[in-house]
Amino acid sequence: MIIVLRPDSTEAQIAHVLDRIRELGFRPHLSQGEKRTIIGVIGEEDKLRAEPLSALPGVEQVLPILKPFKLASREFRRDETVVTVGGECGPPVKPVRIGGGSLALIAGPCAVESAEVLETIASHVKAAGANLLRGGAFKPRTSPYSFQGLGEAGLKILAEVGHRHGLPVVTEVMDPRQVDMVFRYADMFQIGARNMQNFDLLREVGQTRKPVLLKRGLSATVKDLLMSAEYILSEGNPNVVLCERGVRSFEDSTRNMLDLSAVPNVKGQSHLPIIVDPSHATGRPDLIPAMARAAIAAGADGVHVEVHSCPEKALSDGPQALLPAQYAALTRDLRRLAELMGKTM
Amino acid sequence: MIIVLRPDSTEAQIAHVLDRIRELGFRPHLSQGEKRTIIGVIGEEDKLRAEPLSALPGVEQVLPILKPFKLASREFRRDETVVTVGGECGPPVKPVRIGGGSLALIAGPCAVESAEVLETIASHVKAAGANLLRGGAFKPRTSPYSFQGLGEAGLKILAEVGHRHGLPVVTEVMDPRQVDMVFRYADMFQIGARNMQNFDLLREVGQTRKPVLLKRGLSATVKDLLMSAEYILSEGNPNVVLCERGVRSFEDSTRNMLDLSAVPNVKGQSHLPIIVDPSHATGRPDLIPAMARAAIAAGADGVHVEVHSCPEKALSDGPQALLPAQYAALTRDLRRLAELMGKTM
Amino acid sequence: MIIVLRPDSTEAQIAHVLDRIRELGFRPHLSQGEKRTIIGVIGEEDKLRAEPLSALPGVEQVLPILKPFKLASREFRRDETVVTVGGECGPPVKPVRIGGGSLALIAGPCAVESAEVLETIASHVKAAGANLLRGGAFKPRTSPYSFQGLGEAGLKILAEVGHRHGLPVVTEVMDPRQVDMVFRYADMFQIGARNMQNFDLLREVGQTRKPVLLKRGLSATVKDLLMSAEYILSEGNPNVVLCERGVRSFEDSTRNMLDLSAVPNVKGQSHLPIIVDPSHATGRPDLIPAMARAAIAAGADGVHVEVHSCPEKALSDGPQALLPAQYAALTRDLRRLAELMGKTM
Amino acid sequence: MIIVLRPDSTEAQIAHVLDRIRELGFRPHLSQGEKRTIIGVIGEEDKLRAEPLSALPGVEQVLPILKPFKLASREFRRDETVVTVGGECGPPVKPVRIGGGSLALIAGPCAVESAEVLETIASHVKAAGANLLRGGAFKPRTSPYSFQGLGEAGLKILAEVGHRHGLPVVTEVMDPRQVDMVFRYADMFQIGARNMQNFDLLREVGQTRKPVLLKRGLSATVKDLLMSAEYILSEGNPNVVLCERGVRSFEDSTRNMLDLSAVPNVKGQSHLPIIVDPSHATGRPDLIPAMARAAIAAGADGVHVEVHSCPEKALSDGPQALLPAQYAALTRDLRRLAELMGKTM
Repeated sequence: MIIVLRPDSTEAQIAHVLDRIRELGFRPHLSQGEKRTIIGVIGEEDKLRAEPLSALPGVEQVLPILKPFKLASREFRRDETVVTVGGECGPPVKPVRIGGGSLALIAGPCAVESAEVLETIASHVKAAGANLLRGGAFKPRTSPYSFQGLGEAGLKILAEVGHRHGLPVVTEVMDPRQVDMVFRYADMFQIGARNMQNFDLLREVGQTRKPVLLKRGLSATVKDLLMSAEYILSEGNPNVVLCERGVRSFEDSTRNMLDLSAVPNVKGQSHLPIIVDPSHATGRPDLIPAMARAAIAAGADGVHVEVHSCPEKALSDGPQALLPAQYAALTRDLRRLAELMGKTM
Repeated sequence: MIIVLRPDSTEAQIAHVLDRIRELGFRPHLSQGEKRTIIGVIGEEDKLRAEPLSALPGVEQVLPILKPFKLASREFRRDETVVTVGGECGPPVKPVRIGGGSLALIAGPCAVESAEVLETIASHVKAAGANLLRGGAFKPRTSPYSFQGLGEAGLKILAEVGHRHGLPVVTEVMDPRQVDMVFRYADMFQIGARNMQNFDLLREVGQTRKPVLLKRGLSATVKDLLMSAEYILSEGNPNVVLCERGVRSFEDSTRNMLDLSAVPNVKGQSHLPIIVDPSHATGRPDLIPAMARAAIAAGADGVHVEVHSCPEKALSDGPQALLPAQYAALTRDLRRLAELMGKTM
Repeated sequence: MIIVLRPDSTEAQIAHVLDRIRELGFRPHLSQGEKRTIIGVIGEEDKLRAEPLSALPGVEQVLPILKPFKLASREFRRDETVVTVGGECGPPVKPVRIGGGSLALIAGPCAVESAEVLETIASHVKAAGANLLRGGAFKPRTSPYSFQGLGEAGLKILAEVGHRHGLPVVTEVMDPRQVDMVFRYADMFQIGARNMQNFDLLREVGQTRKPVLLKRGLSATVKDLLMSAEYILSEGNPNVVLCERGVRSFEDSTRNMLDLSAVPNVKGQSHLPIIVDPSHATGRPDLIPAMARAAIAAGADGVHVEVHSCPEKALSDGPQALLPAQYAALTRDLRRLAELMGKTM
Repeated sequence: MIIVLRPDSTEAQIAHVLDRIRELGFRPHLSQGEKRTIIGVIGEEDKLRAEPLSALPGVEQVLPILKPFKLASREFRRDETVVTVGGECGPPVKPVRIGGGSLALIAGPCAVESAEVLETIASHVKAAGANLLRGGAFKPRTSPYSFQGLGEAGLKILAEVGHRHGLPVVTEVMDPRQVDMVFRYADMFQIGARNMQNFDLLREVGQTRKPVLLKRGLSATVKDLLMSAEYILSEGNPNVVLCERGVRSFEDSTRNMLDLSAVPNVKGQSHLPIIVDPSHATGRPDLIPAMARAAIAAGADGVHVEVHSCPEKALSDGPQALLPAQYAALTRDLRRLAELMGKTM
């Protein structure tokens, strides 16, 4: 940590900063230049970071040197984490590996609407090569007047349909009080973008060992995303898969702005797998296939795509869903790309 | 609602859109122009909004005409809402009115650290003219390794110290499971920026009648903020005060970007009071007084400022706290501005 | 164009709006609903767009229906434009096609520093498969104290070195007064991000027929980018190649945020080719190869990459340059991707 | 400057970095900690800043300590600069002071349309208390098909009308080739937001001594704005007035997002005056008065407001103009605020 002093800082102020650092158990290194005096404090930055050193009189800025996350970092674990989803609840479902060269192809409707509709969609996406089924039972909707999901009934349908097709299922959990219930049905928890910094919820899923798909918040930096993963890891659950799904921006022709550079950016700093959701990122079916291909070419560990057999009657986010035939065409492209990237689907 | 058709839409597609609208119980109006065909559907937009009309083949875009919120709108209620905080638990706390010309001066430390520290701060801010005491007992921290708050012990200290000084207290609630506990101690719930779209939490505080301070999310539009207020109002709790506290931006010399235009923007569309938090918005004590003054001049119903008697030892967000003397100087300025704006403190 | 009236608009105000529209030579269509009255004006939106209809009393909002660009649109020209660069100045340089399945591989240093350095870089990138050489002679630098480029001497070096290697050259023009000079040396003008809305400069290059590489502004929407292309096209120059190079965002670990969805987004609306510059977008050599691959997979018509033989001594933007060996490895990957996408390099 | 080395940097790499710094004429200070090695280089950061040190092998990041601007900084000049506009061309124009307690009230139409319209507007704004008249003769329009201004004829009208009313005039210059012409008519150059980083234009106006109103770019940080001012100052023109006019953001109900914190932020770092333009910032007449008041309360040295006698027939930006009566009401409010802030209008 580097503490930069103001050009007008007094001797007494500098002495006070040095005392405070020593009081906290660290050894400061003072460098006095012509234009600025700086103090270096190397090592154990975690403890220092919590201290409001920039509030000390005479301090201009405090520059951290180390990254604020540990368990999520490449320095903590050099090898890529591979997260295994499903397979605990007996035969039909073969576990799916995410990371380390194995791609997750998560597909399904935005919301679980009925057993019939889901059955149709599941058979289509399974045939197209999807290996995980998604569907929301609890929906975070901007408006209190929108469809809010089927709740436990939706979870049941999801688990039954998915497992019948040999697909582990992933579904969103929004409230710490739902964690137990969702645990019983889902093979993987999804934490949505709006809850990326719902820290009580992160801790709650962190106390299980079930895989968690953690989506990037709408205005979260890559560092923020890794810090939220750190919450889950620090509770003892190592099975975290990150998901880039676009962030808020001034561009108004797409729903969000997909930040694909987050893929190599995360991979450089962390051992956790990261997948991409081009459906929520763009909100436009005409852009989804190109962005899914780009995600794989950028090195993502999978893609998460919304598919609906009848988007015009979907109860949630219909306009951004691909039709089954569009999804099948996309997976054909992805298969060739995966091969070229040395990955398996 | 206006449905714009693609230039290459077919007769069959147009007929299908018209059928679908009639099926939903509406009467479409078709206008065929030289370059585009559009369909207008006027009235009852709420029901239509939930329908994925833009997923219909041949549709280019769907333009909503009406605002998506009702209970929060000026059209629903012309007169400004005045929210009364405190006073239910008997003397010594005199209730405080927010809105309708009465300003909220909320002040206090980021986190409740101890009875002694809070006592010192409370006596200072009370003397300076604050009428509500703030302090966090549950802290949403980006890092799992940062101080997370004292929990119920913190709530007790806050209520005791605040009420002894005649100040109603406001504190953050982060988890639906904490609502009952926080209800017992606080005069006003705070929903933090990270939880503005934690819909289960919004519903939970909406089922009480205790005032709620709802902070704008880091990437929430003004419309999103009003939609979140709608969640609380639609559960039956009319006592919502909004808070502009800055949004994420590319500017890197301030913590967030304070969007003061949100104040007149909200007032034009909604009857709810809105206050401003320049502390979190800027993260810099040197900018807070100017922004607090600007907030009052823009028509805000109050300001929320972090004050700490010893920022350099604060357990949370010390660097952005004002010292008691700085706060007292600020309230002197605000008093003269309030007078000029025809408001009372 | 749809004009939405305020709920409290009077009969007189509505009549005034209708009169104004008729006065402008259009036929308004009035629809009175329960909650809102709207007026539709279909056709010839270009003329209407310039009128300040939203300033008319009683008007709540004006919603345009048609796109504001014409010559740049797919509706104006269905087939993809192919831009041919170089070859006018005699033998050594074989013209390069951009668009319609032919990829531009533009590479070179940020700035032309000397004939020796450029010679080294040019022979490396040529060997790796690049087909256009870039290098700045006029540099737009944030600081007046930074290296500003070699000016005409730099242009000479660029043309000589590039043409000797059979590579057409592209270089930035920043000032309308430089257009004639740059015209004499360069095979393609580059308009930098900071000048995307320097309309006098756009008009000036629009009056030539030399190809223009138009980079997206730091806070330009895709529509803004196409409107700037429209400036060039409307002066008579059809040879415009767009370039996505990242936009400003809150993410602070990359220089800008690369918006790859702009590639299919532009292709859906326009016939113009679009390439991607991952160097300026990320500012980080560790992210550039992944983003270049993603660009090709997203359907881009080429990539623009900074390469330097000794980044640590580069006079401009050294830290974001790839080394020649890194570039050669990248082009090997791109060649296989291009094949898969049905494109030629 | 602090150079942070990668955790895996080798002895040879560290030695190479130290050599390079010494080669550049500086003395490095090495600190080896348990987790990171850092190198401090204090003093003369300007020269070092231009060196691509982060491209050296083994370097993780380079942290600058000093600000990159000099002439614009408070450290260079402690006292507030007061810029005097007008008065050189003899009576009848009394010069206007901006800064140091004197407020600029700049008002007028977006574009000069005709002598008659401008005459009406000028007499209104003069009566209301404006002390500078604005009006565009060269208009930077997003669309090539929009009204582009009257050119020299517009400049003549502006100067004649303004000076007849005793008001110095300010108008935009967009192209270095127009600087001489605009110089002859205007009392103050305006550099628009889209040209804030048009460095050739900045240099050109920097070579005159005529005051320059420099508007913040749509995605410029406060530091970027000050760096652009540095371009003008470094050419020898000390008469720069900055203007905050809103930046691009995700909020879609206002044209831009007004960043009022830029006012105290600039004042803390620079001696230059700064005014605020709430018209372009919000694009909404209903928000302009509140934001103008907030600007003065935040400490701005003036406000720049568009006024039109007939917004519905304005040739440019009519919908965001105030009516003369609205402007007169606003200046009454501003007068009382100015008094309270200890400023004179």
